[in-house]
Amino acid sequence: MSHRSKREEYAGELPEIVHIDDIKLAFDERGLLPAIVQQVDTGEVLMLAWMSAESLALCFETGTSWFWSRSRQELWNKGATSGNTQKIHRILVDCDADCLILEVESAGPACHTGHRSCFYRELSIGHTVTKTNPSARSHEKE
Amino acid sequence: MSHRSKREEYAGELPEIVHIDDIKLAFDERGLLPAIVQQVDTGEVLMLAWMSAESLALCFETGTSWFWSRSRQELWNKGATSGNTQKIHRILVDCDADCLILEVESAGPACHTGHRSCFYRELSIGHTVTKTNPSARSHEKE
Repeated sequence: MSHRSKREEYAGELPEIVHIDDIKLAFDERGLLPAIVQQVDTGEVLMLAWMSAESLALCFETGTSWFWSRSRQELWNKGATSGNTQKIHRILVDCDADCLILEVESAGPACHTGHRSCFYRELSIGHTVTKTNPSARSHEKE
Repeated sequence: MSHRSKREEYAGELPEIVHIDDIKLAFDERGLLPAIVQQVDTGEVLMLAWMSAESLALCFETGTSWFWSRSRQELWNKGATSGNTQKIHRILVDCDADCLILEVESAGPACHTGHRSCFYRELSIGHTVTKTNPSARSHEKE
């Protein structure tokens, strides 16, 4: 984590500091939590990955992002191979303690496809359909 | 979804449009996907919630966010009770098609605690510990 002289707001509020020993993180039945990786200065969501207790400990120890790969069943230090590691700025935890945000400084692409963010596609059902525009329904399958 | 005359970038790229019939969303063994809810203009991550295929269909149908409540085992239209519904701007899908971002316009607090974002707490292990500042280690348990 970087050393900051001044605490910074998130979503307009100064986060409460909770010590990891004073919160029961709600790991799922696999021992994992989803972690949202967000670029600290731009707010871009780069990726979502899964963390074990061990990967979280490694984040604090190294200051870079570590996850648990469900497909490879192993710990991975994001970007260690490419040199594009994610430097952790701050770790936020949600109300249910079952999801984290890793605010990071990530210089390179975060996605294995080479895209900056894993979220490089927009989901469509054809024409947009909303209650406020019911006439669009008839064009849905054009 | 709102009707936009001009397509907008995400993380510096113009998202590719993928039709829901042309992508196999990777719902988990419970039939759920995590969805990150992000305020469109500020980039604030407001919450993470779980979506079923049915809740996703309702998002497209109504233009507001619908999720699957794992605790109540039912569909919920976020903010319907309080009047603070989340108006969906765009739905992004990640490289593995196993996570979504709902870009929304959310006027009120997104968290049941009354906080703007569910991520109103910062996780700490006491003093920060990084490889670049190994001397901090000795203060870890002060």
